[in-house]
Amino acid sequence: MPNWLLPENIADVLPSEARKIEELRRVILDNFRLYGYELVMPPLLEYIESLLTGAGQDLDLRTFKLVDQLSGRTMGIRADMTTQVARIDAHLLNRSSVTRLCYAGSVLQTRPSGLHATREPIQIGAEIYGHAGLEADAEIQELVLATLAIANISEVSLDLCHVGVLRALLESDDLAKKHEAQLFSLLESKDLPALDLLTRDFSPIVRQALLDLPNLYGDATVIQRARELLPKLSGISTALDELESLVKLALNAQVSIDLADLRGYHYHSGVMFSVFVPGLPNAVARGGRYDHVGEAFGRARPATGFSLDLRELARLMPSAERKNAIFAPWSQDAKLRQKICELRQAGEVVIQSLPGHESEQDEFDCNRAVVFEDGQWVLNNVG
Amino acid sequence: MPNWLLPENIADVLPSEARKIEELRRVILDNFRLYGYELVMPPLLEYIESLLTGAGQDLDLRTFKLVDQLSGRTMGIRADMTTQVARIDAHLLNRSSVTRLCYAGSVLQTRPSGLHATREPIQIGAEIYGHAGLEADAEIQELVLATLAIANISEVSLDLCHVGVLRALLESDDLAKKHEAQLFSLLESKDLPALDLLTRDFSPIVRQALLDLPNLYGDATVIQRARELLPKLSGISTALDELESLVKLALNAQVSIDLADLRGYHYHSGVMFSVFVPGLPNAVARGGRYDHVGEAFGRARPATGFSLDLRELARLMPSAERKNAIFAPWSQDAKLRQKICELRQAGEVVIQSLPGHESEQDEFDCNRAVVFEDGQWVLNNVG
Repeated sequence: MPNWLLPENIADVLPSEARKIEELRRVILDNFRLYGYELVMPPLLEYIESLLTGAGQDLDLRTFKLVDQLSGRTMGIRADMTTQVARIDAHLLNRSSVTRLCYAGSVLQTRPSGLHATREPIQIGAEIYGHAGLEADAEIQELVLATLAIANISEVSLDLCHVGVLRALLESDDLAKKHEAQLFSLLESKDLPALDLLTRDFSPIVRQALLDLPNLYGDATVIQRARELLPKLSGISTALDELESLVKLALNAQVSIDLADLRGYHYHSGVMFSVFVPGLPNAVARGGRYDHVGEAFGRARPATGFSLDLRELARLMPSAERKNAIFAPWSQDAKLRQKICELRQAGEVVIQSLPGHESEQDEFDCNRAVVFEDGQWVLNNVG
Repeated sequence: MPNWLLPENIADVLPSEARKIEELRRVILDNFRLYGYELVMPPLLEYIESLLTGAGQDLDLRTFKLVDQLSGRTMGIRADMTTQVARIDAHLLNRSSVTRLCYAGSVLQTRPSGLHATREPIQIGAEIYGHAGLEADAEIQELVLATLAIANISEVSLDLCHVGVLRALLESDDLAKKHEAQLFSLLESKDLPALDLLTRDFSPIVRQALLDLPNLYGDATVIQRARELLPKLSGISTALDELESLVKLALNAQVSIDLADLRGYHYHSGVMFSVFVPGLPNAVARGGRYDHVGEAFGRARPATGFSLDLRELARLMPSAERKNAIFAPWSQDAKLRQKICELRQAGEVVIQSLPGHESEQDEFDCNRAVVFEDGQWVLNNVG
């Protein structure tokens, strides 16, 4: 097998794509900052106990494990940065006030999430800690839409869901509670025949509600339909009230409801959302509330946030233009060096050719050249 | 053991430090681009064969190994990005012209290089492929000094060395060749007594030269001293000629010679250099020529470059100032939202307070506030 072959679902990023990703990374982080989000950089690896805290089995299976030669303990390479940032809020910053944090970095996953998915997404995201009210969720949803708008993606659909609906149903039926994991996966795939079979011995009210859930998706009127169809449990009313308030808070955005879109269910504690763009089956961004995560670090704080994969976002954008550059000959002449230095300070890309390589063309489009004329170095256009 | 404890020599980067690192990363990458270097992003992990190609045992020991669940093969988390970038040049870009590439990313090391050293440096660097002449080395050395100048580090010492000197000595004495590894480490630590013992049965000329090497450091006059002291082997003359030319090409810089500073010896093929700053025992940047690395990827190309650790460079810089920000109340009023949007578009950080948290002070210094006066939202100074 040749040495240059990379593992499956792992790839190099070549110059034109790398520049798109880098530019996107910068404008997104700059925009987070304009909203008051502070950048943090959690490490690539941690002890497995802290990395997987409250994250559920799915993340465990997706996390590469290593032995620490210094301590003999098991470490993991992060497969998701959300828990790490919650740890930083809970333990390191230790503020009682509202804290807004953002982050950007590579994560690694043992298995790809799909046939062509990368095992090394570049996760970028933002989180608010310390405010339990829906205003924080509304701000995060505004921010995710602003982030996509920066990437010139404005035709998006914001899908809302709420873990409270399924939780309330499970709490009211012990048998249903026992089959939580199975129910979750059947709802996720909207597999009605299997759901019908599994719920046969559940209480009739819960059974009917579970069979109704996969059909409860669409525009904001779904909330009213859900109020009519679902049992009058207090957990369900609260969840539907919250969804209703968020729909009102989300000005300008196209909002949908999907009460069975439960990806991240084990991890979240309230409203969850996914952002879809035309032509892509998977969400480009996901987020929601996860108030319990700080507990494991000794300090439970309300938390809500979102994240997305920069690589995927960059793929949705058109290629960057080839940047114009200036060609300069190789010479140690002090005046030429001075001229080149001035051009670079003015933001020009100046490529000094190395002896013997003067006629080569590289990725830059050299449409001008520094040449020696009448005793001085001047900038000329190149035909 | 508490859940928030990180492994030894692994740390979170908190907001003020993270901002310094991010800003430094950007200005350095922008400067690379002004010189015509194109950004690439190699993956965090590769099959071990390609990752460790030509890199030597030292890097092997410092590389975390993992099993790929998809192929059953052994992968490594990169501990150094240089080989990866050489692979991209040799195989993926496959150009015959001069290629300038740059990169920035985290690497992981099984063991720290010193008591307080991080196991997760952020490596940033630049490489030139396709030109064997010293002009490429001179450009790289100019670039490393320009990079440090960007970080406000101008009082630097550029130390040059050349693997050709030791290689020529070993080629002329089989016994010395047999003890290459040991010799290398004794020269590195300038351990003269042990060197004296080890070289006892070597040919007298080689023995004397090896004992002279650790004293051959200082300003450019060392080259002349070396010409007098060392045997007249063609490899040694070539090496000294190259060093002499580079000293002349390095305008404006304080250049030293250290013929025993052989760190990276196994990996390099010509001139090597280290950059030191006052008060720090270890080099802040290292680089040199490594013409053979592409061979393993099927395409030997001349190569020279440098890299440094962004975390360490950021530590040498003063803290970033707390940025001024604007406080805004929570409200869904469309005119307020419009006002906030305009301020952010003008580059202002606007922090919208969440209900109940109006009096909190966070990391931003809110010296202005958006307030409602005479029927409109205006910007006021805050006492």
